[in-house]
Amino acid sequence: MRGFQTFNPQLNDFNPIKYCSSTYEEVELALEKSQKAFLSYSKTSPTLRSELLLQITQELETAKSTIEAFYCSESGLSNARFEIEFTRTIFQLTSFSDFLLNNWKQLETYTPASQNLPSLRKKPRAIGPVLVMGSSNFPLAYSTIGGDSVAALAAGCSVVVKAHPMHVGTSLEVSNCILSALRKLNLEEGIFQHLIDDGFQVATQLITDARIQAVGFTGSIRGGRAIMDLASKRKSPIPVFAEMGSANPVVFLENGYEEKINHFAPLFAGSICNDAGQFCTKPGLFFIPKSEKGNELTTRLIEEVIEYTSFYMLHPSIQNNFELLKKERESLAANSWIEKKGKLKPLQGRQAILQVDVKEFLAHNQLQEEVFGPFALIISYENSVELKTCLAKLGGQLTGSIVGDSSKSPDFDEVVDLLALKVGRIILNGIPTGVRVDDAMNHGGPYPASSDSRFTAVGTQSITRFLRNLTFQNFD
Amino acid sequence: MRGFQTFNPQLNDFNPIKYCSSTYEEVELALEKSQKAFLSYSKTSPTLRSELLLQITQELETAKSTIEAFYCSESGLSNARFEIEFTRTIFQLTSFSDFLLNNWKQLETYTPASQNLPSLRKKPRAIGPVLVMGSSNFPLAYSTIGGDSVAALAAGCSVVVKAHPMHVGTSLEVSNCILSALRKLNLEEGIFQHLIDDGFQVATQLITDARIQAVGFTGSIRGGRAIMDLASKRKSPIPVFAEMGSANPVVFLENGYEEKINHFAPLFAGSICNDAGQFCTKPGLFFIPKSEKGNELTTRLIEEVIEYTSFYMLHPSIQNNFELLKKERESLAANSWIEKKGKLKPLQGRQAILQVDVKEFLAHNQLQEEVFGPFALIISYENSVELKTCLAKLGGQLTGSIVGDSSKSPDFDEVVDLLALKVGRIILNGIPTGVRVDDAMNHGGPYPASSDSRFTAVGTQSITRFLRNLTFQNFD
Repeated sequence: MRGFQTFNPQLNDFNPIKYCSSTYEEVELALEKSQKAFLSYSKTSPTLRSELLLQITQELETAKSTIEAFYCSESGLSNARFEIEFTRTIFQLTSFSDFLLNNWKQLETYTPASQNLPSLRKKPRAIGPVLVMGSSNFPLAYSTIGGDSVAALAAGCSVVVKAHPMHVGTSLEVSNCILSALRKLNLEEGIFQHLIDDGFQVATQLITDARIQAVGFTGSIRGGRAIMDLASKRKSPIPVFAEMGSANPVVFLENGYEEKINHFAPLFAGSICNDAGQFCTKPGLFFIPKSEKGNELTTRLIEEVIEYTSFYMLHPSIQNNFELLKKERESLAANSWIEKKGKLKPLQGRQAILQVDVKEFLAHNQLQEEVFGPFALIISYENSVELKTCLAKLGGQLTGSIVGDSSKSPDFDEVVDLLALKVGRIILNGIPTGVRVDDAMNHGGPYPASSDSRFTAVGTQSITRFLRNLTFQNFD
Repeated sequence: MRGFQTFNPQLNDFNPIKYCSSTYEEVELALEKSQKAFLSYSKTSPTLRSELLLQITQELETAKSTIEAFYCSESGLSNARFEIEFTRTIFQLTSFSDFLLNNWKQLETYTPASQNLPSLRKKPRAIGPVLVMGSSNFPLAYSTIGGDSVAALAAGCSVVVKAHPMHVGTSLEVSNCILSALRKLNLEEGIFQHLIDDGFQVATQLITDARIQAVGFTGSIRGGRAIMDLASKRKSPIPVFAEMGSANPVVFLENGYEEKINHFAPLFAGSICNDAGQFCTKPGLFFIPKSEKGNELTTRLIEEVIEYTSFYMLHPSIQNNFELLKKERESLAANSWIEKKGKLKPLQGRQAILQVDVKEFLAHNQLQEEVFGPFALIISYENSVELKTCLAKLGGQLTGSIVGDSSKSPDFDEVVDLLALKVGRIILNGIPTGVRVDDAMNHGGPYPASSDSRFTAVGTQSITRFLRNLTFQNFD
């Protein structure tokens, strides 16, 4: 029996509880229960599923302080951040609850018989048992009862969660809330299964099992791709929605920001540094013109980043990886390397910023890759040709931001077009972090930002990841 | 330079024209043009794309008799079938043309700014250049300007067609119509590229090229899976929609058909035999009760099938494969093997039917696999337990049909539930062939019926296979 502990970044020590990874037999049993529960749960009314989601919010509210204690001690995230993420998690549950009551019926399409043609009624249908992998950086909103689980439960899928090993305690507390809600509504407990592992064994067993019909994942490109590969090699391949890496480019156009340097420099510094930059939409690449005002902005942005508060990172392994990637970046252009100085607590992420010109940027492909943590790269460009050359070379991204003024920038439309080819969301004169939970939100993007650019991970439309259609012909 | 000819099943001889497979350089050029054309075409208005689709219908109407001559001489399909498929192809084009005018805007979602939250506008966006592989059995409706190409062009994708080698002449004629329509609307010819190959070289080059962003395919499980595997191993994996094999089970419940044996026996015999059963929805498995009336139905169905007209098969290779699979089936249960006797033209498909009991059916897994051609398997079941055991063992299917009466059959709901787990469409008291082109139609199903059960290949909703979303934040 393998055992492991979660880690408290604030105390720089392991938390006392020892967790055991689920055994092969436990996983097998969970799959069996999940499959069985799917058969009945997928036939429940949208109203009942709506009630379930609301009941889960009540259970979460009741357990809130316990969850908070685990959340903070297992992630190093602050109580303030807990409040934000808790509120968001509740909002996601109530959004889907409302969707089931008000919009589920609209997913149905009916065409009456006419002449010799039969009547058709197309209905949405849960795809099957769904595996949700907890994510490291959102112990609530993208984990046990995060966006993927809520969308899958709303669709009528049974859910098997593989808890993220960095916050198993939080995950177990949340899991208990879900199980309690199921019991109160007299629903099978098999609808929600919770498994634990600090390695890849449990996940591999789950992904390759014929009973699992879809996977939801938020994390690294390496992790997401490994899941995609396992899923596509199955006898019956299954859809994987993986929201993976993104460097989230920010373009300062040649004109349009000059009067607002004092506004944008601290705004973007916060977007880079808050919660140690551990967000999928953290802006990591800044294209800034080489000009008097551009240089002023660059200087201000660097200052603001370096002076920003340092936040705890989620786990020593994440901090180690951050330091490793920083060293790699530093070695590429050491002369323009700027890092926060002074004494920090052991687990606080030491923010850094690197400035390169376009030639250097284009010479080193890894410079455009995501660094998970409070780091950003500034690419100083001479002219719009250089800028557009860089944008054309970018890989898929969750977001791209533009700072400027469409009326003053002759390149505005072209830059929008170039970004549009690469990203899932374009932000004008604003920061990419703080993803609004809404049906007009698109959270996803061309590979490797996500595994399938046709779907979103945020908003109730994310339910389509876990729904298929079934047409009933001649049934009326 | 490899050269090959198409084959005329009616004359049992090759057609005179010799076609050359596209070279590596030609494919490369097509990809380059397609990529370039995508950049402008993806920005065109839905109105312009709607006009393009209508213009294509006009060009097809003008070239109709030439297309018809190629179509019949390259497929062995009749002039009557040509008319049906041509009409369907035109209907698909006009449906999407209407969709672009009336429904495209509804794909957009807008949420205004409120409090501290930004405004969001989510817009559909063409996924990129799409590869469409022509299918053997629908030279028009699922090939060069078939469902996949029309959906992709409507979405704003440039399209690269790899013509099916069995009907290259038809494909070239249709391709000319599309190019002519593009010219008349002053659109880049690169929007539509037409390539030829009688092997897998061109397809492999296309699928593995980074510029191709999605694939549409209709054909065998083996072919579809090969494409899925190539696509999922790319550096940037891409979505593949493959509509593949299906045995299309038909369940006669214990009660409810007895008065209509004379109606159902010839109806299903036609569905098995028409156009030599070369349809993805041809019913291939019949579950019929062992009872006086069930046996009467079995006898009648066998008679009707054996006495049915024999149709030409599409190509000697398809006929060879059909004969091979028939021999395999015959060897499994030779004593109940019934095949049409007498002299047929060389390329006419000789229909056959095999009757087994449930024990035999469950003992040989290959009995549930599709046989492409005029063949069906009758599984005589003793009771509803046997029936349900069989249904639970089935793989993914495009369709499942039920003959019976919900008010008279205690098992009705359970059989619907069992089929619902396996199929994309359930037909009550009707045949699965003749797929109505409509938005309430679902043409697809769990693997291996299709590569992704969340999408349909028929109806304007099939456009979602080739669309992603892009959200504009703060743009108003």
